[in-house]
Amino acid sequence: MSFNSLGTLFTVTSFGESHGEAIGAVIDGCPANMVIDFEAIQHQLNRRRPGQSGISTSRNEPDEFKIISGIFEGKTTGAPITIIIENKEARSADYENIKKFYRPSHADFVYDKKYGHYDYRGGGRSSARTTAPMVAAGAIAMQILAIKNISICSYVSAIGAIALMKNFDELNLSQIDASSVRCPDIPTALLMENYIYDLKAKGDTVGGVVKCVVRGVPVGLGEPLFEKLNANLAKAMFSINAVRGVAFGDGFESAQSLGSIQNDVFEKIGAEWHTKTNHSGGIQGGISNGMDIHFEVAFKPVATLMQPQTTADKNGDQQVLEASGRHDTCVVPRAVPIVEAYAAIIILNQLLIQRASKEFAS
Amino acid sequence: MSFNSLGTLFTVTSFGESHGEAIGAVIDGCPANMVIDFEAIQHQLNRRRPGQSGISTSRNEPDEFKIISGIFEGKTTGAPITIIIENKEARSADYENIKKFYRPSHADFVYDKKYGHYDYRGGGRSSARTTAPMVAAGAIAMQILAIKNISICSYVSAIGAIALMKNFDELNLSQIDASSVRCPDIPTALLMENYIYDLKAKGDTVGGVVKCVVRGVPVGLGEPLFEKLNANLAKAMFSINAVRGVAFGDGFESAQSLGSIQNDVFEKIGAEWHTKTNHSGGIQGGISNGMDIHFEVAFKPVATLMQPQTTADKNGDQQVLEASGRHDTCVVPRAVPIVEAYAAIIILNQLLIQRASKEFAS
Amino acid sequence: MSFNSLGTLFTVTSFGESHGEAIGAVIDGCPANMVIDFEAIQHQLNRRRPGQSGISTSRNEPDEFKIISGIFEGKTTGAPITIIIENKEARSADYENIKKFYRPSHADFVYDKKYGHYDYRGGGRSSARTTAPMVAAGAIAMQILAIKNISICSYVSAIGAIALMKNFDELNLSQIDASSVRCPDIPTALLMENYIYDLKAKGDTVGGVVKCVVRGVPVGLGEPLFEKLNANLAKAMFSINAVRGVAFGDGFESAQSLGSIQNDVFEKIGAEWHTKTNHSGGIQGGISNGMDIHFEVAFKPVATLMQPQTTADKNGDQQVLEASGRHDTCVVPRAVPIVEAYAAIIILNQLLIQRASKEFAS
Amino acid sequence: MSFNSLGTLFTVTSFGESHGEAIGAVIDGCPANMVIDFEAIQHQLNRRRPGQSGISTSRNEPDEFKIISGIFEGKTTGAPITIIIENKEARSADYENIKKFYRPSHADFVYDKKYGHYDYRGGGRSSARTTAPMVAAGAIAMQILAIKNISICSYVSAIGAIALMKNFDELNLSQIDASSVRCPDIPTALLMENYIYDLKAKGDTVGGVVKCVVRGVPVGLGEPLFEKLNANLAKAMFSINAVRGVAFGDGFESAQSLGSIQNDVFEKIGAEWHTKTNHSGGIQGGISNGMDIHFEVAFKPVATLMQPQTTADKNGDQQVLEASGRHDTCVVPRAVPIVEAYAAIIILNQLLIQRASKEFAS
Repeated sequence: MSFNSLGTLFTVTSFGESHGEAIGAVIDGCPANMVIDFEAIQHQLNRRRPGQSGISTSRNEPDEFKIISGIFEGKTTGAPITIIIENKEARSADYENIKKFYRPSHADFVYDKKYGHYDYRGGGRSSARTTAPMVAAGAIAMQILAIKNISICSYVSAIGAIALMKNFDELNLSQIDASSVRCPDIPTALLMENYIYDLKAKGDTVGGVVKCVVRGVPVGLGEPLFEKLNANLAKAMFSINAVRGVAFGDGFESAQSLGSIQNDVFEKIGAEWHTKTNHSGGIQGGISNGMDIHFEVAFKPVATLMQPQTTADKNGDQQVLEASGRHDTCVVPRAVPIVEAYAAIIILNQLLIQRASKEFAS
Repeated sequence: MSFNSLGTLFTVTSFGESHGEAIGAVIDGCPANMVIDFEAIQHQLNRRRPGQSGISTSRNEPDEFKIISGIFEGKTTGAPITIIIENKEARSADYENIKKFYRPSHADFVYDKKYGHYDYRGGGRSSARTTAPMVAAGAIAMQILAIKNISICSYVSAIGAIALMKNFDELNLSQIDASSVRCPDIPTALLMENYIYDLKAKGDTVGGVVKCVVRGVPVGLGEPLFEKLNANLAKAMFSINAVRGVAFGDGFESAQSLGSIQNDVFEKIGAEWHTKTNHSGGIQGGISNGMDIHFEVAFKPVATLMQPQTTADKNGDQQVLEASGRHDTCVVPRAVPIVEAYAAIIILNQLLIQRASKEFAS
Repeated sequence: MSFNSLGTLFTVTSFGESHGEAIGAVIDGCPANMVIDFEAIQHQLNRRRPGQSGISTSRNEPDEFKIISGIFEGKTTGAPITIIIENKEARSADYENIKKFYRPSHADFVYDKKYGHYDYRGGGRSSARTTAPMVAAGAIAMQILAIKNISICSYVSAIGAIALMKNFDELNLSQIDASSVRCPDIPTALLMENYIYDLKAKGDTVGGVVKCVVRGVPVGLGEPLFEKLNANLAKAMFSINAVRGVAFGDGFESAQSLGSIQNDVFEKIGAEWHTKTNHSGGIQGGISNGMDIHFEVAFKPVATLMQPQTTADKNGDQQVLEASGRHDTCVVPRAVPIVEAYAAIIILNQLLIQRASKEFAS
Repeated sequence: MSFNSLGTLFTVTSFGESHGEAIGAVIDGCPANMVIDFEAIQHQLNRRRPGQSGISTSRNEPDEFKIISGIFEGKTTGAPITIIIENKEARSADYENIKKFYRPSHADFVYDKKYGHYDYRGGGRSSARTTAPMVAAGAIAMQILAIKNISICSYVSAIGAIALMKNFDELNLSQIDASSVRCPDIPTALLMENYIYDLKAKGDTVGGVVKCVVRGVPVGLGEPLFEKLNANLAKAMFSINAVRGVAFGDGFESAQSLGSIQNDVFEKIGAEWHTKTNHSGGIQGGISNGMDIHFEVAFKPVATLMQPQTTADKNGDQQVLEASGRHDTCVVPRAVPIVEAYAAIIILNQLLIQRASKEFAS
């Protein structure tokens, strides 16, 4: 039950702080003898890294990784895989506000009260920068899932009130990276981009929604009652900074709906079972049913504003917190590869669990 | 990593099937020397049990529990506490449809494909009946939390499109059980009840939302990065049957909102820290901040309809599944004590974890 | 990390006290669709139960089990399997000493100090009676291992200073149950029996050693560095009451020996790899090497004497603790099926873990 | 259940291979706000490192560590602590034998068969070099235990047949490091040293025993039935390379003894409880009883001989494996700080677990 580990058979242990020497992760339980594509890892890191476009923070971290264990002659050995990403562009000048204030809706306050001593620099351990090595680990998981024809992709389905009206199967998912907001519907993407630039000019921030679609998952992943597939995916998503909500299939809309509308009736075409609709999001009773798994992740707006905020400083005195530092107006486009990574880690973990007992006698 | 255990230091292991001899749970890690109030346990079971009102299923299970270990002379001993609830009113006549069909949006299909052999009677292991011993275990957790002045309460905030417009701190939460729908706003409750009776007449079902409020949680519960308080609460909620969405604080609405609106600024009144607003839902960076924790849980409609449905039978032939059995039109009011129980188990677990290392040197 | 659970994928959770209503266990993660032989379970329980021969305690528990979940139509369903064994012959008259004294080398003292409140009747939770449901769970594990041609057998290799001089492969292991001491070498068994009867007459007790041999384990079970096969077997053995030592292969003798003697050199006969000797006990680097796994478990003498002992009572006053109750002179023969059961649980657990990632790409 | 993690609340995750870029460990769950003494860590690493004396291997690794996360301004923050030790003196010339042979009583064979692909250089992941970062992690645990007045010390009690006859409380434990063999009885130490030099001249190796004594452990550590203190200590010890046996208190001798001799009777002196003897090794029923905890760990001889051995090569052909490389004649003296480290990790972990629920109501 390591607090900083995600997964149980395929386990990723995270370490490092935003402005420390390095951040990293140790992958345990990775199947052996797997060829690893290092460029594919860097590709996902590049999609997450700061400074990648005009709408993201100007902190310019290359986020180049190195792997110092667990891979020998290009292939996994079954031993722990250690990923290290150095922190290059840490600016100490940005720390003064953090030393003086518990910044609103940041974790400074709870870290200070919980631990009594914390690394405040750039948010330290609570920074979303800790997701970078998880993205690298998730990229490895995605490669291993690909062997079993399982693919994961995410995109931005809403920024503020600008929401994509089309369902995932109506979209051209190859267009996700065509815009800086990672919304595959280009007209909607343009609206989103403009909206973000407007808010950036005002020093405000905005939330949004990432939709995730997992294809090729066989029937049977997920272990009721308490290692259900949806429950573990949700736990992983809520581990990502700024997440406020997770919903599968029709999600909160299904709560407003009727059974006669929501039920997914079965059909068998040849040897293959399907459901005619997929309101359930590909999971029933906590177990994958072979349909596409799909869910939404809601992100609140970035807490650091480029506007003054009146709040209490660490002494409890009401003061004006002035804007400073380098921050995103909307972090949701950068969250796309993060959602993919965390989903990949969970899916691979549950796949390994399912393999353990499946068809034992045969 | 027992699949049927919830929690890590305070652990509840579930067992039993809907129409087997009994269902039950084993609580491990319960603090010793605690006086247990058995009536309080039965009270929560009564709030969950079928047949309690006109809007719930007519299956009439008394859901009386017995405890066969771990409590000696009325007090916990630190040894595992075993709760047993017998299944009394199991009617085998209701099984024919389940044997013949994979019922739409039920777990029959995935259980059959995953395990190769399953107890189909009344949904077997996938039945929501398995939540009963968890409610008993949660009632014990609630008693122990009460010693630390932590209280948990839930209510129905929406049935279908009928949603409560008031925030939790505007409601009289002592009125939750005043209506059969467990909505503390009586006019809204009446609308909900009427709506449910209408749908019952049509043989249809409807979803809804349960709101949960946890008060008195001290600052510091939750272990980043991967045992965060919100992440574990979400995982627990998604372990409940029919849950499609979980959202903390402003939830999905925060994704549509701006940082300048969503940020919770700090104030210190005397020695006490507060945030002026609570959009975050009492949790920041995965750690409780001392404010009320609040979240919503979305339930899809009950999958069993009292209407015919055209679907494939187990042979793959399209057939009409006729309605039968005893089922709820809307299960959401009965989910209220379930949400409380699962929340209590998680909160107590994280409280124990926090105690382990807190103020170690002192 | 439930304190009362053994195993991680195949998990057995124990509950119950010696003189409570019942003792039992919940098995989680058992492969589905396995036919269970109930008589084989009872057979192992009978080998463990008290009152089975003149050298065991006269407490006469039938130790009949019932299974109330997880098995449907004679086969496992993948859901938790709950085993219940009622306590029948609990005599409250025997409790007076336990209430008054912390009995020497019993757990009364540590339970009282640790928990503040404990069930003292018959040792309560600390009684070796809690091994009974584990034996039943182990009997199920043994049946599942048998499908993969893995067999486990144990025997008594020493009682006091009377030690079996032959190696396990020189013995007729079908003779284990031919004597009440479960030593397969009949002349040695007779010496042991006589020795025990002598000590019984004196009111003293004696320790001994159980040897365990596991055959048919494929190469590759065990996960370094910290889920090694030997490490987990050792942990399980030390979970058994009264165990003081565990040693694999040549054990403590190897510490006195030379590398030139201890090394197990390889040979390949046809397609099969072997080691010419097996000083390692079938495990190298924490991983099974395909040879027979063998280890020894040392049990201290039973702590309850039929002699007076001068010790402190719970007030701290030195007093004479008079003999009472029903107890074994030597518990080691009854430990034979216990060692088998715990070994089976561990081996099956590690087999499931190994299946999860083995030959992933194929 | 990360395979490469030791502990559950205080967790140490190991990574790295003998001849890779670096080895290391991530500590999770370390209490926050603890001042760390870096020299004390290096001291323990120096006691373990190769090349420290004439009886150890000539591989000359400085084993200097760096910590790249989790410590800020000299104090722990509660975030994961990452320890890195670079591999400096890796000589590829020594690999030829390992590529060609499954070396007798090494893990080459099982790694190859289990993983299909492994880092053979210097034994790779199976090398005892992986214990170095664990020693550093253990040194941190020892510092934290010292705050609670718990101390751990180990020494060599036997090399081959040369065994220390004195009990631990008859020895001057400040003399442990006075000899290169780490036996605190100087005359015995001289015998041991001479014996090792004799064997070194012959190219042979020898096993031995490490005794470990833990003082100051309060009553109540250890969680029956399956997280007992002795069981977890034993599991940790068997995780150390070359360990063949573990025994608590009188160990295997107690199996030869009588209850009337072995029982530890109680006495109360003032407010303090003691047992007059300590045959149990400070643990009863799996729980510490407040007396000194003591146990022995048996190490087999080093498997690499400086003698030719006839064995099968990887093709299965019988060949002579010639001696090469740099290896210890007897690794037991270097195991002393390893045993201390692993014991410290377990004791601290169980202390944290005990704190979680202890005196909950107060």
